Amino acid sequence: MTEFVLDVERPARIGLEEAVYAAGKTAAQVAAILAAAAERRASLLVTRLDPEKLAALPGTLRAEIDYCDLSRTAWFGPPRPVRGQGRIAIVAAGTSDLPVAREAERTLRYAGEAATVIADVGVAGLWRLTRRLEEIRAHPVVIAVAGMDAALASVLGGLVAGAVIGVPTSVGYGVAAGGRPALDVMLASCAPGLAVVNIDNGYGAACAALRFLHAAGRLAGA
Amino acid sequence: MTEFVLDVERPARIGLEEAVYAAGKTAAQVAAILAAAAERRASLLVTRLDPEKLAALPGTLRAEIDYCDLSRTAWFGPPRPVRGQGRIAIVAAGTSDLPVAREAERTLRYAGEAATVIADVGVAGLWRLTRRLEEIRAHPVVIAVAGMDAALASVLGGLVAGAVIGVPTSVGYGVAAGGRPALDVMLASCAPGLAVVNIDNGYGAACAALRFLHAAGRLAGA
Amino acid sequence: MTEFVLDVERPARIGLEEAVYAAGKTAAQVAAILAAAAERRASLLVTRLDPEKLAALPGTLRAEIDYCDLSRTAWFGPPRPVRGQGRIAIVAAGTSDLPVAREAERTLRYAGEAATVIADVGVAGLWRLTRRLEEIRAHPVVIAVAGMDAALASVLGGLVAGAVIGVPTSVGYGVAAGGRPALDVMLASCAPGLAVVNIDNGYGAACAALRFLHAAGRLAGA
Amino acid sequence: MTEFVLDVERPARIGLEEAVYAAGKTAAQVAAILAAAAERRASLLVTRLDPEKLAALPGTLRAEIDYCDLSRTAWFGPPRPVRGQGRIAIVAAGTSDLPVAREAERTLRYAGEAATVIADVGVAGLWRLTRRLEEIRAHPVVIAVAGMDAALASVLGGLVAGAVIGVPTSVGYGVAAGGRPALDVMLASCAPGLAVVNIDNGYGAACAALRFLHAAGRLAGA
Amino acid sequence: MTEFVLDVERPARIGLEEAVYAAGKTAAQVAAILAAAAERRASLLVTRLDPEKLAALPGTLRAEIDYCDLSRTAWFGPPRPVRGQGRIAIVAAGTSDLPVAREAERTLRYAGEAATVIADVGVAGLWRLTRRLEEIRAHPVVIAVAGMDAALASVLGGLVAGAVIGVPTSVGYGVAAGGRPALDVMLASCAPGLAVVNIDNGYGAACAALRFLHAAGRLAGA
Amino acid sequence: MTEFVLDVERPARIGLEEAVYAAGKTAAQVAAILAAAAERRASLLVTRLDPEKLAALPGTLRAEIDYCDLSRTAWFGPPRPVRGQGRIAIVAAGTSDLPVAREAERTLRYAGEAATVIADVGVAGLWRLTRRLEEIRAHPVVIAVAGMDAALASVLGGLVAGAVIGVPTSVGYGVAAGGRPALDVMLASCAPGLAVVNIDNGYGAACAALRFLHAAGRLAGA
Amino acid sequence: MTEFVLDVERPARIGLEEAVYAAGKTAAQVAAILAAAAERRASLLVTRLDPEKLAALPGTLRAEIDYCDLSRTAWFGPPRPVRGQGRIAIVAAGTSDLPVAREAERTLRYAGEAATVIADVGVAGLWRLTRRLEEIRAHPVVIAVAGMDAALASVLGGLVAGAVIGVPTSVGYGVAAGGRPALDVMLASCAPGLAVVNIDNGYGAACAALRFLHAAGRLAGA
Amino acid sequence: MTEFVLDVERPARIGLEEAVYAAGKTAAQVAAILAAAAERRASLLVTRLDPEKLAALPGTLRAEIDYCDLSRTAWFGPPRPVRGQGRIAIVAAGTSDLPVAREAERTLRYAGEAATVIADVGVAGLWRLTRRLEEIRAHPVVIAVAGMDAALASVLGGLVAGAVIGVPTSVGYGVAAGGRPALDVMLASCAPGLAVVNIDNGYGAACAALRFLHAAGRLAGA
Repeated sequence: MTEFVLDVERPARIGLEEAVYAAGKTAAQVAAILAAAAERRASLLVTRLDPEKLAALPGTLRAEIDYCDLSRTAWFGPPRPVRGQGRIAIVAAGTSDLPVAREAERTLRYAGEAATVIADVGVAGLWRLTRRLEEIRAHPVVIAVAGMDAALASVLGGLVAGAVIGVPTSVGYGVAAGGRPALDVMLASCAPGLAVVNIDNGYGAACAALRFLHAAGRLAGA
Repeated sequence: MTEFVLDVERPARIGLEEAVYAAGKTAAQVAAILAAAAERRASLLVTRLDPEKLAALPGTLRAEIDYCDLSRTAWFGPPRPVRGQGRIAIVAAGTSDLPVAREAERTLRYAGEAATVIADVGVAGLWRLTRRLEEIRAHPVVIAVAGMDAALASVLGGLVAGAVIGVPTSVGYGVAAGGRPALDVMLASCAPGLAVVNIDNGYGAACAALRFLHAAGRLAGA
Repeated sequence: MTEFVLDVERPARIGLEEAVYAAGKTAAQVAAILAAAAERRASLLVTRLDPEKLAALPGTLRAEIDYCDLSRTAWFGPPRPVRGQGRIAIVAAGTSDLPVAREAERTLRYAGEAATVIADVGVAGLWRLTRRLEEIRAHPVVIAVAGMDAALASVLGGLVAGAVIGVPTSVGYGVAAGGRPALDVMLASCAPGLAVVNIDNGYGAACAALRFLHAAGRLAGA
Repeated sequence: MTEFVLDVERPARIGLEEAVYAAGKTAAQVAAILAAAAERRASLLVTRLDPEKLAALPGTLRAEIDYCDLSRTAWFGPPRPVRGQGRIAIVAAGTSDLPVAREAERTLRYAGEAATVIADVGVAGLWRLTRRLEEIRAHPVVIAVAGMDAALASVLGGLVAGAVIGVPTSVGYGVAAGGRPALDVMLASCAPGLAVVNIDNGYGAACAALRFLHAAGRLAGA
Repeated sequence: MTEFVLDVERPARIGLEEAVYAAGKTAAQVAAILAAAAERRASLLVTRLDPEKLAALPGTLRAEIDYCDLSRTAWFGPPRPVRGQGRIAIVAAGTSDLPVAREAERTLRYAGEAATVIADVGVAGLWRLTRRLEEIRAHPVVIAVAGMDAALASVLGGLVAGAVIGVPTSVGYGVAAGGRPALDVMLASCAPGLAVVNIDNGYGAACAALRFLHAAGRLAGA
Repeated sequence: MTEFVLDVERPARIGLEEAVYAAGKTAAQVAAILAAAAERRASLLVTRLDPEKLAALPGTLRAEIDYCDLSRTAWFGPPRPVRGQGRIAIVAAGTSDLPVAREAERTLRYAGEAATVIADVGVAGLWRLTRRLEEIRAHPVVIAVAGMDAALASVLGGLVAGAVIGVPTSVGYGVAAGGRPALDVMLASCAPGLAVVNIDNGYGAACAALRFLHAAGRLAGA
Repeated sequence: MTEFVLDVERPARIGLEEAVYAAGKTAAQVAAILAAAAERRASLLVTRLDPEKLAALPGTLRAEIDYCDLSRTAWFGPPRPVRGQGRIAIVAAGTSDLPVAREAERTLRYAGEAATVIADVGVAGLWRLTRRLEEIRAHPVVIAVAGMDAALASVLGGLVAGAVIGVPTSVGYGVAAGGRPALDVMLASCAPGLAVVNIDNGYGAACAALRFLHAAGRLAGA
Repeated sequence: MTEFVLDVERPARIGLEEAVYAAGKTAAQVAAILAAAAERRASLLVTRLDPEKLAALPGTLRAEIDYCDLSRTAWFGPPRPVRGQGRIAIVAAGTSDLPVAREAERTLRYAGEAATVIADVGVAGLWRLTRRLEEIRAHPVVIAVAGMDAALASVLGGLVAGAVIGVPTSVGYGVAAGGRPALDVMLASCAPGLAVVNIDNGYGAACAALRFLHAAGRLAGA
């Protein structure tokens, strides 16, 4: 039973490289995928790799990994050189949203895009957001990471032009647990044109941003 | 089968008069309750009375009613004289939230409290809120009425001191329909100390505010 | 009680004009908003305006309206001249998804963007999609409109580069009713980087696309 | 990447000091926040700090902490001197609700308010409640903490005047697990004017009470 | 296609006669079932028969029907003579719960059991309940009908011995709509031993009570 | 802060003794309650006491405990002498339902009622049920314990006269996980008159049965 | 905008002809699709066509339609000649499940398969099922149609060999409303190997059966 | 208390042998069931047996077990000899779906059916599916295993004739967690005639396939 098939033509097809979602896989499966990539001298981004699974990988594979424990992402092989900068801002409401923000940042950086992270600007203290608004507005694409009431996304959507991608997080307890309310209010935002990804999906927000950059490149060329 | 029992000692007990929730009752039941009140020369607030049910009431009862079709509230008998003013602000995010805001306003006014209504200050255009912030802050008690993303409640909670009572509304479609996300984010607000009532419950928010005033009176007296 | 406040600086702030969501408003409220806009010689997009409410508007206002009954959208005042074309494809899975696709198309056209609509290409007959794939791929931005299993969005996401905005629809019955499964699978798509808006929110998808065009313009200028 | 920004002007703005919600943060993040506060000689309330995370803090920080393991709250630095007493009653239905009641009590005490806790008065044995009713009624503000059927909140709401703040708890199993039914019946209470906070949110109830005291002070001064 | 099969041996088997649930049937189907019963000189209880469907029945069948429009129940053929009395109390929280209470009462009466109905004793005014408590306690079996917070059921469960059958109702709006919270808190009641039936199921509560009487008869005989 | 108040008059009031629900309590709280009971020479039933919490109790208290690890129930002090037998059958669908069935059995036995347990008679092999049907029918009260499809309860309800109390269990995975479908189909059973308790609530089912026996005693005496 | 594309090669590809789901379409859209089919001399099955929409079709199209108002299905053009018989049994629990059963029957018959319908054999009166069990068992494929507790599907699954396809229905009120519990218990059935389709999806169950027959033909030929 | 009753006539009745679902049972209960089977020289399939529970079985029983840790299935006693081959394809979307696919494969093999497993053909890279389409089409019965968006099932349903059985998996996070969206879109697939089983129920899918082979055998014989 062949267990996996790398989608090697994905970059040519959709402009994004395949990544490995480690949470649903055993350490052995992750190791096999990395070994196959190593054989083809390909690099890979691994998401949701917890420290225990990392520790269970063979040392030779581990040696090729740049690991971030806050976001649980691994770069297997070197990231692409930086090609863009100052184009994407990642804005996070609170400290608890940082793992998701970092996952987005690391996904973008691996693809060669250096994003700006602006943290702890939740709307409970609106001044924290307004004093950094000009800095945020300087980026044509904004990723808003927020849990609980996720009001940051709506407020940003009403204040900045350009693309806004909302990432709800599962932070919180009681009705907030799991992040469904944060997701739903991003979808139901009174600020028009928010684009939303799955709860805690920093990786997906980064991919959406990369798709935008890809499209913008084509529009500029047209 | 005796079908209803007026709770005549309620004002003495909890400082609030009984009101009639008409939505779950037939026109005949509402008429019987009003007639009993008329006999005892009591006045009554009726909520959720739709125009068809109003039209089905006997003319003699209808003649005693001050009806508001936006909020579907009826005053049966005269409201109390105004005893307080400028103490409660009702802040509504959008035009669609006005029926609920009006229900709160009419409930308060019936009890003798003249509230200030500040409408259409949703956060999608934050300047609409900030330019009226001082006016809002002048009221020790604020009722925030908002549906969809309900971000107004969190933003207000972070900007005003004093009591903030959130009323989520069922405005919207898709995930917003029914108002559950608006409710949940008010409960999960990153602004601490929001007090929340049921979806579309302008009446309940007004009662909570009246309870606050009652308590404040006792505290002042102590 | 001032009931509404037009957000006249919205275009300058976020590059999108305010629109009127008619579903939560009475005909009288819609009429008042339109009259105010007429006075200021502004034009307005109205969404979710059902025929009954349209018929209840004063004739003088109705005379200024271009109405589409499939999408229940109204243009109050002339749309902007076409500024872009062939940049956005709206791809709809089935006939039942057309009202939502049309809402997106009309929103874009009102803002001066002529989109291409490609309909009835659901994946149950994959050949319908593949034979039009090159045409779709020619557009840097794709809006995918689908209900029920919403598999179209994932399949498109795996086949096209550029931005993909998913709009789930509430088409269907049983577990599909209301569109939650369609929404959830767009969010959980195995094709990375889908950006999603609320159920049936053709208007929101169009706004997200306009935000993206705005960002692309800035990126091109940078 | 600056990970947090203390909202130092919060007390001036809304009358409440910022607190640290530890559940979504790593021990290292909590330690960094406390260290920053220590540097500015500020004190802080920490909620949802589990014993493992407490044990992982540096000893110098731990030495400044007054910890309560029932409520998992930590006072970092001394609480304010007592300014009010006998104004707030915290009424808990059962032993299992005590952690939440204690969180409310400790939050209030940290802010200088000494609340009265009345425990194990659930309505399954109504006499337990009625024999303490006068004591409860002596407090203008009542916080009702209850899980499972949460009937205590409704019964109290029908018996006491003044402000009633309901805190549903996640106690129980089967349909009760997570506390949603307790929350929903507090919101749908037939006793008018209950103000409700998130499930298990003793901290939030205390903040709502503090907001109310703030408002009452202004009302008394007016 | 034979569309229905009367379960004529049901009384012998489980001590309950078959009833016709009209809501899911066309008027023609109901008429056919009644005609078949008439042919066999059987009588039948019909539940959830709305007035339109009643009006659509042939006059000859309608002539045999005793209809109650509050509960939408029809007796087709005479009820059994009264065999028991004072054994079952039906206690309803509010006027809006009366249709369900009446359905229970009419189901019992049709089977020969005369129940006592005690209405409008919701716990928001606890004195209304306590002044009738002795009367309620005189009945070995109590059916508690309540919606919204359904606190009546828990309070009764803590005050009366004997069997307590809870019937949640779908009265209310917002989170209460549909009756799920009322159902859940009856199931999660802190008063032990409540037996619960489906939302709005007055018929089912009556059948549970009849099953109890059947069992009690056997126990007495043993 | 007094943390608990034993409801000592509960037996006189509702015919049931108070039990201790250990799941929401710390070992220290359970120990304190047991010690207080020991002091008053009272015995107590403890439910949901997991082995770790049992082990953490003081040896002197543990010595008084009869513990069943399948059902996690503890008898603190001797059960009442057997007063009834052959009156209640506990019928369980599968092996996985036995912990709940045993909780019901132990609750009944502690109160002096010896129930008959009939296990592994799920409807997937209907012959297992039918061959024991006469034995089941010999009991006036039947407790049906079933998870997953819970079809056993409906089938029993259609086959036996007398009281049927359904206890849904949380057995299973996927859609069955948590037991909500099992609960819902018991409530929606096409067999009339099922009385239902909370998911996994063997204790509650036993209490409902005891309430019924209490009522039957009064009916027999009347 | 081309609004629909008939999938004319579907029969060759998957052995099933395309059908028109009318519920999500306007009468004009249905008419256009039928007219296009008429032009190509194709016949079509239409599902969920309500009488109002039927009446709104042009008379020339209506003349070609064989309509069944119980199931709201329309045959546009003649059904295929009968090719199979006695191979599929459709077993329905109650009268209220007949519309769905009939939809399955009409879908099968249109494709040339004459199914046997066995109605009103719900498990509340198990004898109704057992007396027809041999007849049911004579069919290698059984479609079980049931709502509310849907216990019929599990009981059948435990009694018959061969393929069993469960169709939950949305019959009922309270927790049963919408059919989710019926669906879930079919999926969680303790009888192994039930195959389930969407709520009320008689059409889908028929298609699943046709797929089985197609596969069986290939297996027999192999 | 007899705790289990093997359904020994199940194969004769429905063509499937009983299997042991270990997740809801203690190791002692599993051991007792296996010992009873051993005594009767019967073999048994055990599902959801985690490694800890396996390790807790007596060595003599463990010696008879062929265990697969990916799928957590155990064969107790030898599988049946292979009777069929190339009739059933198991198609899995991703590596994370393999445990469920393997459970189906092992269930089939134990019953004597050798299935073909085709893995990692999710639609995000459609070419992976299309290049193996002919191989899949060669099997009259296809089991589609997919989580997250589960689009594979719809795409397959539109491409292959013959029976398609969908198994949703609980892979993923955020809205995907638990597998409900994957289940719902399989049920709501626009490809007609998908037959669906419970989330993660590879065993059930295999049983449905075996039922179908049983039916096909009878159809071929007829």
